[in-house]
Amino acid sequence: MSEVQVYRDLGRSFSEWFDYVLEVAEVYDYGRYPAKGMGVWLPYGFKIREYVINIIRKFLDSTGHEEILLPLLIPENILSKESEHIKGFEDQVFWVTHGGLEPLDVKLALRPTSETALTYLESFWIKSYRQLPKKFYQIVSVFRYETRATRAMIRVREVSTFKEAHTLHEDFNDCERQVLEAVDIYSKIFDSLGIPYVISKRPEWDKFAGAIYTIAFDTLLPDGRVLQIGTVHNLGQNFTKVFEVRIQKSDGSIDYGWQTSYGISERIIASVIAIHGDRRGLVLPFHIAPIQIVIIPLITAETRDTVLKYSKKVFELLSSSGYRVYEDLRDELRPGEKFYYWEFKGVPLRVEVGVREVEGNYVTVFRRDTLERSKVSLNELVSYVERVSREYNENLSRRAWQAFKSRIIRLADISKAKEYLNTVRGIVEMPWCGSQECGLKLAELVDGDTLGTPLNEDASGYNCVVCGSKANTFMRLAKKY
Amino acid sequence: MSEVQVYRDLGRSFSEWFDYVLEVAEVYDYGRYPAKGMGVWLPYGFKIREYVINIIRKFLDSTGHEEILLPLLIPENILSKESEHIKGFEDQVFWVTHGGLEPLDVKLALRPTSETALTYLESFWIKSYRQLPKKFYQIVSVFRYETRATRAMIRVREVSTFKEAHTLHEDFNDCERQVLEAVDIYSKIFDSLGIPYVISKRPEWDKFAGAIYTIAFDTLLPDGRVLQIGTVHNLGQNFTKVFEVRIQKSDGSIDYGWQTSYGISERIIASVIAIHGDRRGLVLPFHIAPIQIVIIPLITAETRDTVLKYSKKVFELLSSSGYRVYEDLRDELRPGEKFYYWEFKGVPLRVEVGVREVEGNYVTVFRRDTLERSKVSLNELVSYVERVSREYNENLSRRAWQAFKSRIIRLADISKAKEYLNTVRGIVEMPWCGSQECGLKLAELVDGDTLGTPLNEDASGYNCVVCGSKANTFMRLAKKY
Repeated sequence: MSEVQVYRDLGRSFSEWFDYVLEVAEVYDYGRYPAKGMGVWLPYGFKIREYVINIIRKFLDSTGHEEILLPLLIPENILSKESEHIKGFEDQVFWVTHGGLEPLDVKLALRPTSETALTYLESFWIKSYRQLPKKFYQIVSVFRYETRATRAMIRVREVSTFKEAHTLHEDFNDCERQVLEAVDIYSKIFDSLGIPYVISKRPEWDKFAGAIYTIAFDTLLPDGRVLQIGTVHNLGQNFTKVFEVRIQKSDGSIDYGWQTSYGISERIIASVIAIHGDRRGLVLPFHIAPIQIVIIPLITAETRDTVLKYSKKVFELLSSSGYRVYEDLRDELRPGEKFYYWEFKGVPLRVEVGVREVEGNYVTVFRRDTLERSKVSLNELVSYVERVSREYNENLSRRAWQAFKSRIIRLADISKAKEYLNTVRGIVEMPWCGSQECGLKLAELVDGDTLGTPLNEDASGYNCVVCGSKANTFMRLAKKY
Repeated sequence: MSEVQVYRDLGRSFSEWFDYVLEVAEVYDYGRYPAKGMGVWLPYGFKIREYVINIIRKFLDSTGHEEILLPLLIPENILSKESEHIKGFEDQVFWVTHGGLEPLDVKLALRPTSETALTYLESFWIKSYRQLPKKFYQIVSVFRYETRATRAMIRVREVSTFKEAHTLHEDFNDCERQVLEAVDIYSKIFDSLGIPYVISKRPEWDKFAGAIYTIAFDTLLPDGRVLQIGTVHNLGQNFTKVFEVRIQKSDGSIDYGWQTSYGISERIIASVIAIHGDRRGLVLPFHIAPIQIVIIPLITAETRDTVLKYSKKVFELLSSSGYRVYEDLRDELRPGEKFYYWEFKGVPLRVEVGVREVEGNYVTVFRRDTLERSKVSLNELVSYVERVSREYNENLSRRAWQAFKSRIIRLADISKAKEYLNTVRGIVEMPWCGSQECGLKLAELVDGDTLGTPLNEDASGYNCVVCGSKANTFMRLAKKY
């Protein structure tokens, strides 16, 4: 157990639990692959990933985003063209220097992100305000040469699930509108998975390299540390000027385009697993569970035929209603072993079918979230599942938000804040004057990381906890992953 | 025009046509990206790609293949462990040598293919015959440092759509069964897209590096050159011995596992485009068309409201029947321009709606494949589209196979074969004794490439066209891409 009590019963420290669950539930193989910071999506995890990606796609496609696919490799002269950007990334880029046995003329970077490559292309593609706003996205691998300790899905060298969106606009105001749209889309994506979050404007010293400002979504993992799960950047004209994306505006004048970009990575999947899981293993939201309902026939030699016939009927009933159902007919496992196996995999509903169920024309349904068993008559089963499938996600969401909110505290006392961050962890909000000097000092004093400021929060009446002058906002502090 | 007449009317040489179509139909941007051999999937092309990938997935998933995702980077010591394999790839591998500003301890290859990385992992994952057969696949980018002239989708340095399947078996016989299953799956995939092919066992000197043997699917592009569109390899124990994948067999003994692998790339999409297209642009099979039906209202100032109301009704009717329908309401384009635009994009059906259609309660439907117009009454429209959508793919397939077959010829005369390959191109089959010496000599004499031999073909009664001894098979020869 770590010094900090995890906020759900995981039976062990969060980090041990997380690695154990990914392995035993066969989600993601991390640590076996012979290169640091790179993992393998296993079949079961790959399906969860697909369902999560489909949710992301749904929200982006329905708001006019168009999916594309850019090359992985970015020539050095393109990547380094925007000076702030390359300064932020130069320590973190993997470089391809050789093709076969020959050295390359121009080094090629494994994309750390694609603002440079796409803006270069937009200088050819986009000429007129009539084409705007233009919203592109892609879902790809990005690479960061991470020198710190890595951790499955959370801090890796190959981020193998990175959704990056890039938009182009006629003016600054439309960028501001787009930032709000992106924040709204990301809120809906996280909401649909029951992931709680705070939205903060990152401080100047922690914004994306090349952005005017960055807005970030942070969640809390069960050990109380903060995980950044999404960021939205207003890029202004920083990239379009460098790559000369000149656009004819509606008033006939020519100007450089204006941009935003925003990203979500596989940390969204790490969060779903970390936040909803318990000591029995995964707890998956209903709509991203590869198997939503598992049927376990309880058989003796005498009842075998009757029970299997009934079980098959239940299977047909549920799968014809559109659910992903699996009938576990393995002879080598006892029912209890099957229960354990599928609970660990996070299957939302288990339907038990034995001779009593056959005789009573009902089934026994076990809910993975509440661990409760109910008897449901066969002719009510479909409507029962329909109702529970909705309640299920609401329940996961509600308890995740509850735990999350209980760990956010507003404090004006620096030593209390420091103690809070060292015991509970969570997020502390402290009145702040807004100066970089006080912000950095505050982080040092409370031994925490600065998340930034709430988007709309009135701090009048408060004084900066560092310099004592009038506070104009709150600084959020936490221990970051 | 090239010296070789293209076999469909493309209005220009095939290679010019192909580049032109990819660009104007906004499928794939090639040549603008500032690194050789790398292209961009544009929104319209990305959707075509998704529909094709879905077809591939459907056939693999329904035959027990499980999708996974492996890291992109393969450490040098893993990639080079199987000696034949690395010999085949060492000239073609991109190497990552630096992370940030530091040199890496171990060079990392951008995967050219994943036999080595996956077999390494299988040595941990698979221990018993009970887990077999195991069929994995992934759809990823692979990289080849191609020094020849590159060509969009056909010969690139980043193959951004590579489906690689890897299977593991208890014995050689099960590998043989799997090879046949893979050949069957690939046949179905190509059939569903109307891509004609021959299946050949590649000669010894042209098999996959590390395989016992390779079976390949080849098609013909309109210029008569052969394009390899799929390969299936029996790998035997070549990789499992090197990576020590030891498996307990059903008889209790321990043996190294047996493997096959098979791949399909974005050349499948290049083939669809190349084979079905015509001088008006793309012709897409119905089920992979991002837009299956476009509705063009024919409007005058007086009829505007009536026609738009009717058009909307037609739109609702078709989209509620599950088709991907688009209503082109752009005011800035004349109907003729819209016709041209959507024909170029390969939309299978165009529905024209004007005042005459409104009055007669019908629509005018244009088929992109046959270029024919029909009047269809509104209450028969859905069943008409249902029927035509099936006929459409059958028609594309039929005419593609017809053109394909007309270009395959059996010849025993070397100078005639040479002339055929220099004028018609296509595929020539010639009696062959089976010796490597005669095979290589034959390629030289006819100035062609060896595709290999048919899987089951009786050559009795024929003599090898090179040495004159008894032929035991036919060698297929062509000009390869």
